[in-house]
Amino acid sequence: MTTSPDTPFARVDRAKVERNIARLRAHLDALGVSRRPHVKTSKALEPTAMIFDGGTGPITVSTLAEAEFFADAGYTDILYAVGIAPTKLERVARLRRRGVDLTILLDTVAQARAVADFATEHEESLPVLIEIDTDGHRAGVLPDDPQLLEIARILTDGGAQARGVMAHAGGSYFATTPQAQCAAAEQERRATVDAAERLRTAGHAAPVVSVGSTPTAHAATDLTGVTEVRAGNVVFFDLVMAGIGVCTIDDVALSVVATVIGRGPDDASILTDAGWTATSSDRGTGTRAVDQHLGLVTTDTGGVLPDLLMIGASREHSVLAIRPGVERELPDLPIGTRVRILPIHACATAAQHDHYEVVAGEGKPVTERWQRCHGW
Amino acid sequence: MTTSPDTPFARVDRAKVERNIARLRAHLDALGVSRRPHVKTSKALEPTAMIFDGGTGPITVSTLAEAEFFADAGYTDILYAVGIAPTKLERVARLRRRGVDLTILLDTVAQARAVADFATEHEESLPVLIEIDTDGHRAGVLPDDPQLLEIARILTDGGAQARGVMAHAGGSYFATTPQAQCAAAEQERRATVDAAERLRTAGHAAPVVSVGSTPTAHAATDLTGVTEVRAGNVVFFDLVMAGIGVCTIDDVALSVVATVIGRGPDDASILTDAGWTATSSDRGTGTRAVDQHLGLVTTDTGGVLPDLLMIGASREHSVLAIRPGVERELPDLPIGTRVRILPIHACATAAQHDHYEVVAGEGKPVTERWQRCHGW
Repeated sequence: MTTSPDTPFARVDRAKVERNIARLRAHLDALGVSRRPHVKTSKALEPTAMIFDGGTGPITVSTLAEAEFFADAGYTDILYAVGIAPTKLERVARLRRRGVDLTILLDTVAQARAVADFATEHEESLPVLIEIDTDGHRAGVLPDDPQLLEIARILTDGGAQARGVMAHAGGSYFATTPQAQCAAAEQERRATVDAAERLRTAGHAAPVVSVGSTPTAHAATDLTGVTEVRAGNVVFFDLVMAGIGVCTIDDVALSVVATVIGRGPDDASILTDAGWTATSSDRGTGTRAVDQHLGLVTTDTGGVLPDLLMIGASREHSVLAIRPGVERELPDLPIGTRVRILPIHACATAAQHDHYEVVAGEGKPVTERWQRCHGW
Repeated sequence: MTTSPDTPFARVDRAKVERNIARLRAHLDALGVSRRPHVKTSKALEPTAMIFDGGTGPITVSTLAEAEFFADAGYTDILYAVGIAPTKLERVARLRRRGVDLTILLDTVAQARAVADFATEHEESLPVLIEIDTDGHRAGVLPDDPQLLEIARILTDGGAQARGVMAHAGGSYFATTPQAQCAAAEQERRATVDAAERLRTAGHAAPVVSVGSTPTAHAATDLTGVTEVRAGNVVFFDLVMAGIGVCTIDDVALSVVATVIGRGPDDASILTDAGWTATSSDRGTGTRAVDQHLGLVTTDTGGVLPDLLMIGASREHSVLAIRPGVERELPDLPIGTRVRILPIHACATAAQHDHYEVVAGEGKPVTERWQRCHGW
């Protein structure tokens, strides 16, 4: 009889979370910049509190449900870092009326008009960051786009606050050397600081310059003019981050624990009870130098099983096999053996779970359960 | 102000669910075979009750958490159709002691030994189906493999029950014509019936012959010897099923409702607030005749927006664009517009949500919320 949870489950190594947090903190302290960690990866109170030595502090969220969850736990300074849909403004205002300094994000004139109209109508001085496109990755206004000033003017005229600018250097996930990541960080810094300066020259206070991908946060060597860094994946890390050198595989604090339940056709694979419902189908390393497929497999004591990958998934089965192109025997993993599958993308794997089973460190039993916030 | 739920949310059209259920029921009634629907797709009580005209009946589950959830709601005849991990037997036994006739699945001698040992030690006459590999797709014993009889003998000697055989013709998802799907159904039927006959000839009762993929359930024209059909995806359907002709796009009962929040770089795409957290990253049509990428987009009244696909996803953003290779203007979807994203794989999309917002039919408001079972 085991007292460990039934598989599959999401296992977190608390010592690794602490180590990951401490490393980034030391780096950002040395650069003299504040943190506003993104809590979207863990969506849990405990690892977030660890970032603030048990207290609360400024955070970034990806949904209003997260904002409400963390507000209930005492967080009062929250950035909702997804472009605002006008229909969500009433919910934003409700949080602000509870005493939460909730800042919203936008990057279009149409959104700015909707926010300004809402601010005027409800006499709500909503604080807004304008998203800056620093690398053509997804969203945002270019730093020299005339719309930047137009958006700020519409906001201010309507009684909302143009509090500053924000960028997410999503392109940095594809920077594969420290030099390239450092260059991406500088590009992100330069574009956001320039945009903020344009706003200030036009008469807007724009006190906030927010940057934030995990690679750029670790690689930056100068953050002059930046007021906050949002990196969030750092609490758990994953194989995408390890693949581009932001962390080592040993730093990955999250894994899915699975049990071997059989063999595939021709004994060419091993089946476990952790399917995509437990790991996600994220293929984030599919186009990278080393394709880790759906995850890298370790023993239940954390040793990497050389070249053993999760190469396929059904709903409640994973298919483990030797890395394509490598000649190696499958390891001897009898039915009932537990293994761990390291996540390709910690955000996606974590999102498949209601809670984490937490150990203090390698070799320690599960002694804590951290609940995650859900939904939108 | 809208009274509709905040986006993103999972919307279910109850009238389509009813229609999908009725169609398969009529087909299986005509073939004279019983149903044991797989509830893994919806994981919800309401659509499952619709299958049984409001009552309960035999069901198939993909996790023990589902078995417990449905047992709590009065279901007493449950097949847990994932190869059993020996550590889960105690939990299986607890459900059986509650009066649930829970059947388990296995396909190896090692699992059979573990089950037999457990049955002997606890005097629990566990009923077992042996998984048959009918198409080399994932798991199972070949119907003529000597291990089939060895497994049954081990089970019976230990005091467990060799209740029969089960197959899942996973290969049928790649059968793209009614003829090929019908052939897959016959192959599944033939292999399972043959395997059951071998068991019976060897002296095992083996009353159950269980088959089940959604394509084969719809395509079968003869199920002689089969005692139950497990198809489950049918309640919602999805673009994979529509792509191989098992249903039409209009039959897809599940969608993710999203709000337009911006434009991508160069105005070449439209951003919404439904990312992979809402839709999943399933790329199930990626290798098919028509690649629907991450989903097909409709208006909020259900009309397909021609060639508008969800071609990219971040955590809380989807990127909508015209199908690659097609020359067409992006539709005029101003910020705040609601759209629906039809799921590539309903199981994966549904798994991203805690509940469904349910409308009685097209044009009707949300009037019900169906909760999903979670975890393992």
